[in-house]
Order: sequence, then C-alpha cells, then structure tokens
Amino acid sequence: MSERAAILRGEYPHLATLPTRWSDNDIYGHVNNVVYYAFFDTAINQYLIAEGGLDIGGGDVIGVAVETHCQFMRSVAFPEEIEVGLRVGRLGRSSVRYELAIFKQGEDEASAAGHFVHVFVDRATRRSVPIPAGIRGALERLLPPAP
Amino acid sequence: MSERAAILRGEYPHLATLPTRWSDNDIYGHVNNVVYYAFFDTAINQYLIAEGGLDIGGGDVIGVAVETHCQFMRSVAFPEEIEVGLRVGRLGRSSVRYELAIFKQGEDEASAAGHFVHVFVDRATRRSVPIPAGIRGALERLLPPAP
Amino acid sequence: MSERAAILRGEYPHLATLPTRWSDNDIYGHVNNVVYYAFFDTAINQYLIAEGGLDIGGGDVIGVAVETHCQFMRSVAFPEEIEVGLRVGRLGRSSVRYELAIFKQGEDEASAAGHFVHVFVDRATRRSVPIPAGIRGALERLLPPAP
Amino acid sequence: MSERAAILRGEYPHLATLPTRWSDNDIYGHVNNVVYYAFFDTAINQYLIAEGGLDIGGGDVIGVAVETHCQFMRSVAFPEEIEVGLRVGRLGRSSVRYELAIFKQGEDEASAAGHFVHVFVDRATRRSVPIPAGIRGALERLLPPAP
Repeated sequence: MSERAAILRGEYPHLATLPTRWSDNDIYGHVNNVVYYAFFDTAINQYLIAEGGLDIGGGDVIGVAVETHCQFMRSVAFPEEIEVGLRVGRLGRSSVRYELAIFKQGEDEASAAGHFVHVFVDRATRRSVPIPAGIRGALERLLPPAP
Repeated sequence: MSERAAILRGEYPHLATLPTRWSDNDIYGHVNNVVYYAFFDTAINQYLIAEGGLDIGGGDVIGVAVETHCQFMRSVAFPEEIEVGLRVGRLGRSSVRYELAIFKQGEDEASAAGHFVHVFVDRATRRSVPIPAGIRGALERLLPPAP
Repeated sequence: MSERAAILRGEYPHLATLPTRWSDNDIYGHVNNVVYYAFFDTAINQYLIAEGGLDIGGGDVIGVAVETHCQFMRSVAFPEEIEVGLRVGRLGRSSVRYELAIFKQGEDEASAAGHFVHVFVDRATRRSVPIPAGIRGALERLLPPAP
Repeated sequence: MSERAAILRGEYPHLATLPTRWSDNDIYGHVNNVVYYAFFDTAINQYLIAEGGLDIGGGDVIGVAVETHCQFMRSVAFPEEIEVGLRVGRLGRSSVRYELAIFKQGEDEASAAGHFVHVFVDRATRRSVPIPAGIRGALERLLPPAP
C-alpha cells in the first residue's frame, strides 16, 4: 500500500518454520488472510511455552490478545513452508507488543508483516497481572539490542 | 487499550448474524482471536456476493486482502451468536477500506472492532483494476451519510 | 460410492441451520471435507448445551469424540447456508452414536451423511462415566420412535 | 472402543511431520477431532503434489474426497508435533483408499487412525476419470508389498 522499505528476515531474532495446510488455501488459490494470524498465534505461543514456561493448560497467568494487525504484500500458498519472524517491539508491565513477519522459504523479503499485543491476565478473574519472570526473561531476549 | 468512546451498533449500516462454532473456542474457553477475521471475511464477501454481484468462482475481478486489523475489547464464546457490523470507511478507485465490529446478541457496545482493506484485482494477472460498477454501487450504500 | 437409497431430511428429528464461511471453501471452490466435521461438532454441542445442560466451560462431565465418519455425495459451497440433521442411532451407558446429514437449503436429499460417537468422561480423569440425566433425556428425544 | 491390536508406525511407508497450531486445541485442551482430518488432507496432498505431480491450481484432474473416517484412541495437544502415517489400502481405476494414522513424536502406537477415499475427477465437469499415470505411480509405491 505505502512506499516503504522492504521488511527483511534479519530484523527478527526468532524464526519458526511452519508448513501450510491444504485447508489454508482459499478459493483464490492462496493462503487465506485469516490464516496468517494463526501463524502469528502459533509462533508466539510455541515460543512462550518453550522459552518462557507458559503453561496453557493449567497456569494461573495466560496471555490474551487485545490487538492484532497484518499487511499482506505477496501471497503464499499450500504446499509451501513458511517462516514466522518474531521480535518484541515493546515490553510493558503486563503487556507485550510482538512484531511479526511471514517469509517464504529462501526469500529474504517478507510476504506479510504485522503486530500482536498480548495482555497477561489471571486465568480466573481475567484481570491484568505483571508478566511472570520466566516469560519476561524470554521476551527480553527478543527486544532489539540497546543502541 | 486506549481511552476511547464505546463503539456502537448504530454506527454500522449493515449487520450480518453469524453463529459461532465449537472449534472457534480455544483452550481459554473463548473465541480465538484468529476467528474474528473469519467473521470479517465472511460478512464482507456475503455482502459483495449478494449485493454487488461478486462472482468468487469465475468472475474476472476478485478482492484480495492487503491489510486487516482488530482490537478485542471483550470476549465472545461458543455457543453464542454474534453480529458483524459493516460499513465502508474509504472507497477508492480500486480499493476499499471496510470498518467492522463484532457485537454479542442484545449488546449495543462492540466486543471487538477493526478494519479490512480489499484491493480489487484481475483474477489472472493479480494487477489492480477499477472496482466493477455493481460492487461499487453496493459499497457506496455502506458509506456514511454526507455531512 | 455404494448403491443405496437417498438420505432424506425427514429422517432427522433435529435440524440446525448454519451459514458457511468464506474460509470453508478450498481451492476447488467447494466446502473442504474437513469442515463437515465442524458442522457436525457444532450441531451436536449446540444441542447438548441448549437441551441437555452440558456445561463445556466448567462441568464435571464432558463428551469426547472417539469415532467420526462422513460420506460426501454432493458438494456445498460458501455462501450457501446448510442444515445439519441430527438423530441418535444408539444410546449406551456412557456413549452415544449420533447420525448426521448435511442438507442444502431447499433440498430434501442429503449432500453428505455420517456418524459421530461421543464418550462422556470425567473432565479431570478422562475416565468414562454414565451419561448425566439431563443429557440422557435430551438424547432420548432424538432416538427413532419405538416400532 | 473395540478390542484390537495397536496400530504401529511401521505399518505406514510414508510419514509426514506436522506441527500442531495454537488454534487446534479446543476448550478441552486437546486437538479438536476436526483437525485430524486437516492432518490427513495435508499429508495426502503434500504427497500427491511432491511425488505424483498433482497440480492443484491448474491441472485438469483433481482428487475429491468421497468418504473419510477416523478413530481417536489418545489425544494430542498443541504444542506437540505429530507424524501422519500414510499408505494405500486399495487402488482402483479412478479412486484410491488411503489409510492413515497419527503418531505422537517418539511413540510407536497410533493416537488416531482412519481412512480417506479420493475420487479423481475432471476439474470442469467433476466426472470421474482414470488416475493420471504420475499419480498412479506414486500411489503404487504406498501399496503393501505383494505377499
């Protein structure tokens, strides 16, 4: 849409490889725009579970989405594999803004890019709580290097 | 996230009623954030097909998503029915910005709200083309009244 | 596949109307076979919640799928609305076999038909338990009339 | 459900590794039964495209599902990776019956198993046609060894 520089793979400290699925393709023969958010959600939660100790089944603190956004530059299609680039753009007391991009295998320029904001809440009351230490540590590792 | 006035049902000239599905609920017991975009996509295309004559199977011109966004204020959950509010925020030569919101049955205040930008393209070349007259007419009916 | 009589709408005591969604269509322009099971799951759970008091968020007893099956006779496609026919084929101590079919609006002959077996289990231990009285009552109303 | 021998990984000549996605988990904390069919569909089509030259976007011949079935023995859950075992049970003139199973990483015994019948049809007329030679060759390699 806008004139802006290409978004590059090297801007993302974490990359998750995900295959597309048959049902991701819509009638126009490319991955439906909705599915990009499933890629985002999956890459984020894989990371939080593996690196931050998030316990999605029984933990007291969970992350809920409060805002998501995506721009689509070029289409991808099943059966391609894609890579999801993930970094942290802003880390608050109880919320985090992830910045994400979708790359085709072997391409350096993003096919899509967006952001996703999680607020961490108490599972029972759904009130916001401070980000638990283990998760915070994992998220700090995805912040851009201090200038 | 931000301090802003509630988004109300009356702001949307078109409302589509959609039931949630079992699989829309995620492990946290509410509709997964990804699914809201499926609600958006469905409401928009239902409208374009019924009111604008969009032929998704064989027409020369199709609408492809170039940007989508959603803010989530309150959760919805299966088995609730939701309503999708739809209006047109900006209508260009070949693109349209839809503004959408999700309402629970019987609630006046939106549970989620976002936007979705379609560019109309030639099905074969994927180059942008002027919005066909039938679709343009349907979209104009969703523009806010002139001041 | 086999030579058999058409499956008719009148064979199902309960009918649930569901719209298709944009993302249900696959690259071949019809609803992906996977989605029929989402129609089944949704119709069954809507019924159990509304008629049998199933509490999917907090109840002690939940129904888990142990077997599902579907035959596809004719395709359906977004933006069609479909109807799901539901009856009970066999009602055991802790399990139930549902028989289901998918009808296009205004068609008497099924486009697809299948079955789905639920076992009711304790949410925590996942051991099978007797079907709770409220749910059993609702299921009995979907049994074929005694001969 | 029934007394039968375990279904083992070694019975399947082709194995496809697929990650689960966040949205695969339902409110009960395990992968929704519907998603197993998405695993089946994906493994089958990945194989047909890579090994048999199926052209899902423009080829004259496509495979459409006419029957699918699955039994669920043990649950899997995001963020686990699963493997889909694939073999051919019966190869006809225009149809093929695939037999499939889902394995957790590192487990020899299947968590779920089922079958899926494709009929190959002309894309335009949807009339059944002989299986194209390239696809037939790929399918023959998944038949059990002659006794």
